[in-house]
Amino acid sequence: MERLFSVPLKGGKLTDVYRCSLSELEGEIESYPSALAVFDDNSRAAYEGAPPSSMILPPGEEHKNWSSIDMILQNALRLGLARDSMLIGIGGGVILDMTAFAASIYMRGARCILVPTTLLSAVDATLGGKTGIDYGGAKNIVGTFFPADKVLIVPQLLRTLPEKEYRSGLGEVLKHAILSSDDALMRFLIDSRDKVLAREDGTVMEMIRLSLEVKISYITRDPEETKGIRSALNLGHTFGHALEALSDYRVSHGEAVAWGVQRALDLGRRLSVTPPELAARGLELFSLYGYDGSYRVPEELFPGYMDAVAKDKKKKGGAVRFILMEGQGSPVAMALSTDEVRSAVV
Amino acid sequence: MERLFSVPLKGGKLTDVYRCSLSELEGEIESYPSALAVFDDNSRAAYEGAPPSSMILPPGEEHKNWSSIDMILQNALRLGLARDSMLIGIGGGVILDMTAFAASIYMRGARCILVPTTLLSAVDATLGGKTGIDYGGAKNIVGTFFPADKVLIVPQLLRTLPEKEYRSGLGEVLKHAILSSDDALMRFLIDSRDKVLAREDGTVMEMIRLSLEVKISYITRDPEETKGIRSALNLGHTFGHALEALSDYRVSHGEAVAWGVQRALDLGRRLSVTPPELAARGLELFSLYGYDGSYRVPEELFPGYMDAVAKDKKKKGGAVRFILMEGQGSPVAMALSTDEVRSAVV
Repeated sequence: MERLFSVPLKGGKLTDVYRCSLSELEGEIESYPSALAVFDDNSRAAYEGAPPSSMILPPGEEHKNWSSIDMILQNALRLGLARDSMLIGIGGGVILDMTAFAASIYMRGARCILVPTTLLSAVDATLGGKTGIDYGGAKNIVGTFFPADKVLIVPQLLRTLPEKEYRSGLGEVLKHAILSSDDALMRFLIDSRDKVLAREDGTVMEMIRLSLEVKISYITRDPEETKGIRSALNLGHTFGHALEALSDYRVSHGEAVAWGVQRALDLGRRLSVTPPELAARGLELFSLYGYDGSYRVPEELFPGYMDAVAKDKKKKGGAVRFILMEGQGSPVAMALSTDEVRSAVV
Repeated sequence: MERLFSVPLKGGKLTDVYRCSLSELEGEIESYPSALAVFDDNSRAAYEGAPPSSMILPPGEEHKNWSSIDMILQNALRLGLARDSMLIGIGGGVILDMTAFAASIYMRGARCILVPTTLLSAVDATLGGKTGIDYGGAKNIVGTFFPADKVLIVPQLLRTLPEKEYRSGLGEVLKHAILSSDDALMRFLIDSRDKVLAREDGTVMEMIRLSLEVKISYITRDPEETKGIRSALNLGHTFGHALEALSDYRVSHGEAVAWGVQRALDLGRRLSVTPPELAARGLELFSLYGYDGSYRVPEELFPGYMDAVAKDKKKKGGAVRFILMEGQGSPVAMALSTDEVRSAVV
């Protein structure tokens, strides 16, 4: 196991991020005498070992609810787990968010390891401590801030991803390149495009490392999303979430975010918020990776789109805020008028 | 409103503790445009105003469960509350623990005010951020650490308490006197016994203030109960919880804790852990307040008592620990043998 980062988060708690092989992962998991491993059907199939205590949740966003949390808690109770026991989530974002949420409320906080099995969850759901479930029709509306003790990234697990899942993760990676205050990730993505798309192990790992570096620079400055800094990571998300909702989640999260970032860059340029060169470079990067971004919401669906925007939980004091880029590494949260949103997405 | 304390807790968050009148409380509650007040039937009857948005939960420990949390969350969603909205719990410990738990997971942490309406909750459930519900038959096994933004103590609300409830609170106050590193609370309780028992407003308020001072000295040194300091507040609780459980909760929490502290003092003296003078002074204080402590668990119920002890969630690494006093203000956590426990309670 090679330690990549040790990230200070809420209350000074450190999250250690490791790269490891599948057999190292299995050794690690089997080393905890008091633990519960939480899989979904997909991740259980990819994992070859036999963890001491494990459970399988049904996959998919529709199961990101209290009844899944209840199953984790009941299993933890049945196994007699204590506060120093380990809950280990192995899967995509849904499994990781739920395992971490259950860990955060079991005995007011047990220990927690997250093992992402998708590119999206590796760059999006592992660091920063956002846990949660959907509730009353609203996404991630119930949850906690609870950083994991460890994040283990296993390139072998990512290799088996369906193409669509991989592209969904790439959308978030490209977003991080736009948010970065330096060129490292952007240059890497341009120079290594073919190896990235071929999912060469070392290249994927380096891309994840650079992507997490950008994320870390935002979350460590604002661990509980109270200062408006961390919310910049929502670049593309307000535009994107509404598209996901409107499509009944047929559009994947990363594809929707990619589209949302493109919309934000384009609108930012037209509102003279985003420097034209920055918008152009960003849009070019997306196009290099095959995100054409030409989709527009049909006029008759726009009211539904705006309803979905209004449901977005990031509303604070009544106004929904969109992240636009003022410059490289300089995001800004802005309230947009309905006409401005329309001009961006229709 | 008079500010009594400003207590630094988890993540540097401050909990401000105020003394206020009933009309000041109502003014405060009505000043929040986006809020939800959570009562039980008893506290709603004691409160004279009409809060903008409120709900009433059924009273009692048997409703300290997820279905009550679900009702709070559904109401919060229906009202469109945001992260900066205020959840206001008005009631005894059950209502306060649940309102704070709901606040801690709604949008990963909304704001929260706690208004204790019992002496027990004023000294036990308001400060320190322990929130929670019962789950799978275990008390407070699911919850979070989430300090309230404000605690408002209203002596008028405490005046209407049934005698049994008041005595339940006194048990915790006496425990704090034993745990204190100085004599202030102990001397106050001895000197003001008659006024305390007559529930004279000013005396009750001063007793609460001194009691919270002791609690604060423990919780600020160990905000998330990771250092073993804070667990000292469980003096009398391992002995007491098991008695509560064995009696099917007919013995009140404070009475059970008072009994448990007496058992701990007596056993500590016999094991040469507690100096005899300290044990004697402590036992005298309880006797001054009419806690005779002579109850013993019948031999045939002892196995059931030990089962209840084993269920106590404070087990860590397999052993249940009891708090004994090594000296004034010097608690120590000890694993006791079954025979030692038997000699203390049978």
